[in-house]
This record gives sequence, structure tokens and C-alpha cells, in this order.
Amino acid sequence: MADKLIIFDTTLRDGEQSPGASMTKDEKVRIARQLERLKVDVIEAGFAAASVGDFESIKAISLAVREPIICSLSRANDRDIARAAEALAGAERKRIHTFIATSPLHMEMKLRMSPDQVLEQAKQAVRYARTFTDDVEFSPEDASRSDIDFLCRVIEAVIKEGATTINFADTVGYGVPELYGNTLKTLRERIPNSDKVIWSVHCHNDLGMAVANSLAGVMIGGARQVECTINGLGERAGNTALEEIVMAVRTRKDYFNLDFGIDTTQIVATSKLVSQITGFTVQPNKAVVGANAFAHASGIHQDGILKARDTYEIMRAEDVGWSANKIVLGKLSGRNAFKQRLQELGIALESEAEVNAAFTRFKELADKKSEIFDEDIMSLVSAEEHSQGNEQYRYVSLAQHSETGERPTAKVIFSIEGSELSCEATGNGPVDAIVNAIESKVQSGAELLLFSVNAITTGTQSQGEVTMRLSKAGRIVNGVGADPDIVVASAKAYLSALNKLHSKSEKLNPQI
Amino acid sequence: MADKLIIFDTTLRDGEQSPGASMTKDEKVRIARQLERLKVDVIEAGFAAASVGDFESIKAISLAVREPIICSLSRANDRDIARAAEALAGAERKRIHTFIATSPLHMEMKLRMSPDQVLEQAKQAVRYARTFTDDVEFSPEDASRSDIDFLCRVIEAVIKEGATTINFADTVGYGVPELYGNTLKTLRERIPNSDKVIWSVHCHNDLGMAVANSLAGVMIGGARQVECTINGLGERAGNTALEEIVMAVRTRKDYFNLDFGIDTTQIVATSKLVSQITGFTVQPNKAVVGANAFAHASGIHQDGILKARDTYEIMRAEDVGWSANKIVLGKLSGRNAFKQRLQELGIALESEAEVNAAFTRFKELADKKSEIFDEDIMSLVSAEEHSQGNEQYRYVSLAQHSETGERPTAKVIFSIEGSELSCEATGNGPVDAIVNAIESKVQSGAELLLFSVNAITTGTQSQGEVTMRLSKAGRIVNGVGADPDIVVASAKAYLSALNKLHSKSEKLNPQI
Repeated sequence: MADKLIIFDTTLRDGEQSPGASMTKDEKVRIARQLERLKVDVIEAGFAAASVGDFESIKAISLAVREPIICSLSRANDRDIARAAEALAGAERKRIHTFIATSPLHMEMKLRMSPDQVLEQAKQAVRYARTFTDDVEFSPEDASRSDIDFLCRVIEAVIKEGATTINFADTVGYGVPELYGNTLKTLRERIPNSDKVIWSVHCHNDLGMAVANSLAGVMIGGARQVECTINGLGERAGNTALEEIVMAVRTRKDYFNLDFGIDTTQIVATSKLVSQITGFTVQPNKAVVGANAFAHASGIHQDGILKARDTYEIMRAEDVGWSANKIVLGKLSGRNAFKQRLQELGIALESEAEVNAAFTRFKELADKKSEIFDEDIMSLVSAEEHSQGNEQYRYVSLAQHSETGERPTAKVIFSIEGSELSCEATGNGPVDAIVNAIESKVQSGAELLLFSVNAITTGTQSQGEVTMRLSKAGRIVNGVGADPDIVVASAKAYLSALNKLHSKSEKLNPQI
Repeated sequence: MADKLIIFDTTLRDGEQSPGASMTKDEKVRIARQLERLKVDVIEAGFAAASVGDFESIKAISLAVREPIICSLSRANDRDIARAAEALAGAERKRIHTFIATSPLHMEMKLRMSPDQVLEQAKQAVRYARTFTDDVEFSPEDASRSDIDFLCRVIEAVIKEGATTINFADTVGYGVPELYGNTLKTLRERIPNSDKVIWSVHCHNDLGMAVANSLAGVMIGGARQVECTINGLGERAGNTALEEIVMAVRTRKDYFNLDFGIDTTQIVATSKLVSQITGFTVQPNKAVVGANAFAHASGIHQDGILKARDTYEIMRAEDVGWSANKIVLGKLSGRNAFKQRLQELGIALESEAEVNAAFTRFKELADKKSEIFDEDIMSLVSAEEHSQGNEQYRYVSLAQHSETGERPTAKVIFSIEGSELSCEATGNGPVDAIVNAIESKVQSGAELLLFSVNAITTGTQSQGEVTMRLSKAGRIVNGVGADPDIVVASAKAYLSALNKLHSKSEKLNPQI
């Protein structure tokens, strides 16, 4: 029988550490619910001790999601571990993932501890974590630059203390498949109790080899858990992409001979949701989830290519959830049809009041746009959830004009803590004018790092989804806004980014 | 001494086959010039027999670019080879790359030839190609599904005929590193004259492993040429990314022990140029060339991260050509300063008239935008080169207005073959209104597949660069337009796409 490969998703923890990818609690719960539909085995929901926001998100996900194991990261100290356990208290199945650096550089410069002290603390952390759950993962930080004898000692000791998963991380994306796989193999061979645990791989994509490194860790090194993120989201070049791992293992089952629990037909929906919430777009030539990944989905219907499809396609677009845009609802659709479609999309709104609010937005949209697609509904619900929070700034309306030979002007009405303000400005273009208008009242002084617009569906009647990334005093946030009018979408995105900047959050970003 | 790894760039051939990535002759020459600055060893400039456009592009590149070897693809027949030789006639150094399918399926169904006939034709093709140049590459198409005995026979025979490079392609991106490398190793071991040629790898990224497969082909299989594209451009999930191969080999020189000729500081400029011309955006978390690939470049200046930079970064952003946006010119800059900056950017305009036209556009832009960056100048020259062609449609001016509660309106003036037209329409948003206005005159009936906007530089004063992908009767084109006003940029992009649809081109897309 084929072994099972455990899919450990860390979109909400390591993925979120990507500058600008920070998410609200509600957004995280929505992604976690989708990860449950995708049938991942473990969701790393955050790092409980990092911030109040992380703690609350893990707590909410522990209650909302019942099938996957919910995991919190924690440093190897009692306070962090107790905090993780508290956040996870309501979870059906929970895991504490604790880590400590084992390289000479990190032990000396960062921890200011001797190797023996580190060993002792690692043991103690695992022992303490086991008082809360039988499922404890341990990661030696900066493992690849650690002394291998010391690494073996630490890992053997934490396994004795009851660690059930050992994670071998290529934190800086420096690995090449052969070497990474062989190092893991050596560890497993040298550590006498290595067969008592599941071994895990965690790779970064700096040299474009995260997927191959992870799979070498599986094939050569014997790992049976892969840590990964949706769309390869993550700092720098990102983490291992979940969708590529899963489809490689499935497409080349002849070679890997491994099973997994993932429902591959949920891959594209999950990719779109994460991209929409974080504002991190997926390039057209991205494997599996890029718009071009399947000729089929990129609009080619030439006879020759259709005929040759089996010859040149190794995966089927349907298997990962690509389907043509379908008109699902229109102006005349009623509340019941809308509610039913929400259910079919797996969107669970908390209360009737939320359904009503979303339905109102749907009717507003249907007035402007004759064909409503699934993607529109997802975007609508996203916007609805945004507005559930205590937003400082809220979009009300705008008017804008541009004409060759004149300077573009915009008038924006928005509210600050509930009271409406009107402002006007000019700019180099309508979007610049809107930002100038809003800034004339808000004076945030934030710098715009990135501006991008993508159509939610095909056709010129599509809504535009705008991402604006702002930076201020070292913090980076992404705001997202959608509307059939991209100038309105830009105003919404800018205000959404300002709201995120406004909600102060101090947070630790561990490097694993 | 370390072996040299030959970098064979096929952005202009296999990259261009990506739906929507088709380029004009001038655009190809500009990219080829940049590839020369990047110091690639071989430029596959096109497939001469595929279309008149390809033929002319190869001819122009052969004359414009002197350092790299210029290569044309050709099927294994006299007509194709003669056509390739004709296009390459002016090249300082030239290569003919000929291919024929060797798998039973392709030989029987597509070629309708027996294995012996295929063998004979392959030999004849290489023999004929050698009458034009000493540098002949041979690719067995669908090699991975070919009978290995037959494959060995064909390759041995074409080497006897004088082939100097043998390319082993993973056409459908089905490979995994260990297997791909070992198959190549087997071929080299079994073919008695295999040491007479350079072996080459050509991989696709469908399972996210193109880079690792290529490098396994090098390390296990003994290949010394890698075929790749800028940004991994290519059909479906794309080809092997040049920048990832180069930086992996450089960063892990301890493992690969290979040299290459690439000037890595030209990587980012090349990436931006290709992305700008094709309209294929690069996602933020793309290795090496993504906006986030280096924390440094993504705007993080927190103390801790700066201090820890050496600890967590394995490459330096400067080494691949990332630098902060620099204000290089402004409203008061004169013609000489502009011309000098063009030279520094390596942009060679053909005539003084072209410099003057570009300078006029520069002044227009500087009136709208106080700070002009290198990226603006590159975009300006792109637009200038676009307008050199015999454009059917040309943007003149527009006025647009949108206001909450009213339907957005737009008035566009543009010219068709030189005569100006004015048109007005409403739409769901200003962009929809513009498209409706233009379509009221043009009636192309094209379908909008993709709409995206990216800011060329940071800051709200940046120009927006709009890509619109249209599909009509199975043809897909990308139009690109840039302007500080994204609505104007959208109008330019739409007209640019219509121009590309208008220029009929029938072209063969071989699958290698």
C-alpha cells in the first residue's frame, strides 16, 4: 500500500509573513474553511504568542474548522507554549509546533545560550507541550548550518520527550534536491529513534527549487509531511507551492507511489481566494493555478490544439478545479437563489443579517453588471467581511473626470469613524487624484509601493480588483477593492489599506 | 577548471509561443539586444519557416546582434533549413536547430513515416544544415516517449552527420529530476559518439520542477547547455527560468562547479523589458525577479531585518540588478541629457528622427509627471517603437467621467489608417465605456480575456501599464499601454491589441 503524504499548510503562518500579506481574523477563518474543503491534513493557523491578532485567529479557526489538525507555532519556552495551547483549546485536533535555533551562530548571537542549554530547553519545551496535546512538532531553526552531531543529539532527545513530527527546514532556500534529500537521510539513519516520528520538509523557493527539494526530502530523505502554502505565498520568493506538490505527486504516482487526502478540484478556488484576500496576484505562467497553466483555460480553441490535448497535457484542467466562467446569477435572481449559491460555493455566513447585507450588495452589483459570476460572489462576500470589522475609514461615493489636455480631478466622499467627509483634488490620473483627495483629509504619509488591477472574470463588463500596497514606518499592508469601475475599486483599495495601517499590530516573524 | 554552462535563450521562440506573447520585429530586436548585454551564449530568435514575421525578425536580429550565436528553429526538411539559413545569412555566428519526432505515436499519426524514414530524414536534415553552418543542433521531438533503442540510433546517426548539439526535451513538463537526469545519462552512455557533442536540456514547468530537472540533466546527465527563457515565459506553466538557473548555479557553485558567461547585473532589466513588451506580469513572490524576491527591494527597512540580512539572504539584490528607483530626469532635462540616458540604458534608437520623436513624448510625459524614472523611459521607447509600425488604429485623445449613481461615460478620439474618428459610449466603468466607444466604430467582436494594470514605478504619480488580452477566432494577442492616467493607458492598450489582431499572422507552433 502506498504511504500517505501529510499536507501541512502554512499559508496562514509562514505565508502571512510575506510583506503586505497580513490578514484579518475573518479573512483567516475564511481561508481556513476553504483549506478544510481542500482537505489539507494540518493547518498552521498562526503563531499564538506573536500578537493578539494571531492568538484570536487561531482561537477562531480552532472553533470553526473541525476536520484538519489545527497547529500553532511557538518558541521553545513555557509562555509561548501555554499561549499556543490556550489558543488551540477549542480545537477538535491540535498540534503545538515548537522551534529553537541549533546553529552555532544563532545560539551564540541570538539566544546567547550554550549548546547544552539549548538542548535542555528543547527537551523541556517538548515535554511541556506534550502536557497539552499528544501531537507535538519540533523544528531545529537554521538546521542546515548546525553541527550535525549536535543536531542528532537534540532531535534524539526531543523524540524521547515525545515529539511526534520533526521538521527539517531549508529556511533560506539554499538547498538543491540531492543534497537536501541526502542530509535528511543521514539524520534519519544516524538518529536511533528516528522511526518513532514523522519527518517533515519545509523549503523556500529562492533558487526556484522548493518543490523539487521537498520531493527529494520525501523520496531520498523519507519525509512523509510537506509544509507548503497556497500559490507558494511567503517571504521573498515564497514557500513550496501546495498545488505543485500535490499535482506532481499525483501526476507522477508511478514514481512517487504516495497517496494524499487533498481534494484537487478545490485547488483553483483556494488559489483565487488566497490571491484575492492577500492581493498577491498569480502570474499567468504559474504552474497549475496560473491563467495559462492549461491551454484549455487560456481561451485557445483551435482545432489542432483541442485534438492534441491528450498529447500535450499531462493534467486535466477540471481535475484542479478550472472551469469556464459561468453566469450564475443576474438582476432578477432572488434571495433564495443567492443563498443557495453561497452554500454551493461553501461560503458560510454567520447570521441572517450577514446574508441580508451580502444580498443587498449583490443587488447593487447586479444593477451595474448584468452577469454575475461565482468570482463576483466571492469578491462580494470578501468585501462584506471586510466591512464587518471596526473600520476607521469607509468608502461612500465618488465622482471623477479626466480629459486630454486637462488635469484629472476627483471628488471623494468617505467616512472616518462614521462621520462623512467630502474632499477634492487633482492628480496625474484619476487614481492619483483620488489618493490626493483622501490624503488631503487623512494625511497618512504612507508610500505606495505597488498598484495592480486584475479583472475578476473575463469580458469588459468584469469587475476590476485593485490591490494597493502601502508602506509606513517599516509596516507594509495590502488593501484590496473591487468594483466594475476601476477608479472606484482603487478608492476602496486605498481606504482598505489605510484601515489596515490604522489597526496597529506588533508581531514577531520567526524565520523557520 | 570548471566547465562552462552554455545559456541558450529561447524567449523569442518558445517563450513567444505563449498565447498572447507574440511580439513585433522591433520588439524582438530590442529584447535580443538586451540578451546580448546579458551575455547569453545563444539566442533562438525564432522559427524562420513559421511565418514571414519570424523570418524577418531572425534576419533583423542576425544583423543587429553580434556577440551571441543566433539560432533559428527548423523542421527536418530542406525548405525549412534553407529558409533558416537565409534568415541567418547576415549573422556573425549562426546555428540551425532542426527537429523531428521520434516517438511511435508522432511518427505514425503526425508524420506518417516509418522509423527508418524518420532516421533517414534526420540524417539528411543535419547533413544539409551543415552545408550552411558548422553549428547544428538536433532535437528528437517527444523524446521521452520514444523507444530508447531507436532514439540511440537516430542520435548516433545525426552526430555522424555533423550535429554539434543534441537537445533532450521534456516537452510536456512531465519529468522529475532523478529520472530526467538518469535518462539523459543512459543516452550518453549508450551512444558511442556521444562525447563528440554538447548535450542540452529543455524543460517545461508544469509540475514546478523545470529548474531542478534542468540542473539534474546537468549534474546527473552531463548536459552543458540549458535552454531557458526570461521570467520562465512560455506556454502553459512556461519554460525553465533563465534567472533561476543562473542564480542557482552561481549561489551553489560549491555543488555545481560550473561557470557561465551571463552578466547577472542585467537580469532585472531584462526581466522588466520582457514583461513590459509581452504584458506577462511577474508575480511578487517569483524567485530572483519578483518584487518581493529580496526583502531589501520590497521596502522593508526595519532594523532587525537589515541587521539579519546576511543571515537570511543568500543572494544580494545588487548582483541581479535590483536598485531603488532613481529619479533620472525631469521637466527641465534637455535633449542631450535624455539622449545620454538612453545610451546608459543601452537603448539604441535607429535614427535622429526616432530620438526626436521619443524626446517629444518624454516632454509630454514630464509635463504630467514631475519625476521621470528609468522605467518610464523604457516604457516611452516601447511606445515609440510600437508606433513605428504601420498601425491601423492610433490613440488621439479621450474624455471620461464617472460618478456614483450615474452610468460612466467616455468619449474617445482615435484614428483609423490616419483619419480621425470620435465616438462616445457608456459602460459599467470608464474602461468598459472606452471599449464600448471604440467597438462602436471598429466592431472587432473580440473577447477580452485578461485585463491587468501595474504601476511602472512606486508612488501614486507612477504611470499605469495596462495589459489587455483579446481573443478572436482562436487568435490571442496582448496589447500594452502606459500613461499616468490608467483610463488613457487602457484605451492605448485596447487599440494596441486591435492593431495586433489586425496584423494577420499565420504561424506554426512546434512542440519541443
